[in-house]
Amino acid sequence: MAKVKVFITLKEGILDPQGQTVAKALENLGYQGVQDVRIGKYIVIEMDEEKEEEIEKQVKSMCDRLLANPVIEDYFFEIED
Amino acid sequence: MAKVKVFITLKEGILDPQGQTVAKALENLGYQGVQDVRIGKYIVIEMDEEKEEEIEKQVKSMCDRLLANPVIEDYFFEIED
Repeated sequence: MAKVKVFITLKEGILDPQGQTVAKALENLGYQGVQDVRIGKYIVIEMDEEKEEEIEKQVKSMCDRLLANPVIEDYFFEIED
Repeated sequence: MAKVKVFITLKEGILDPQGQTVAKALENLGYQGVQDVRIGKYIVIEMDEEKEEEIEKQVKSMCDRLLANPVIEDYFFEIED
């Protein structure tokens, strides 16, 4: 059984209104040092597969087809045993 | 300038309907080894603050007050220079 942690972020240059709203809210709450906030997704997938190569191939394909929007999002992932 | 990566996950035992939907969709797309999918948030905060202690204190407070819902969510974070 493998655990894969997938991180999905907006590409640089893509506006992040949700992040901007959170940054503004933090400022209003009194946190003065906040320069920027970007919000992405953190997806943990448990897979019944042992071969690292196969896991990597499958997760890359999942990201390209379903988990991320390649037009506006980047992704990377880490595999744990 | 420090970069803080915050990970917010649903607590264990809390149902994740979004994750279940994605798991089902992956199965329907032909990925057979998927056992479980949990979806959380990945927030990157850029802060104008150098002292690691101060950053840690502030980010913990931000999570408790705004970023996470402590009733159903856990969080952890990593500080990068």
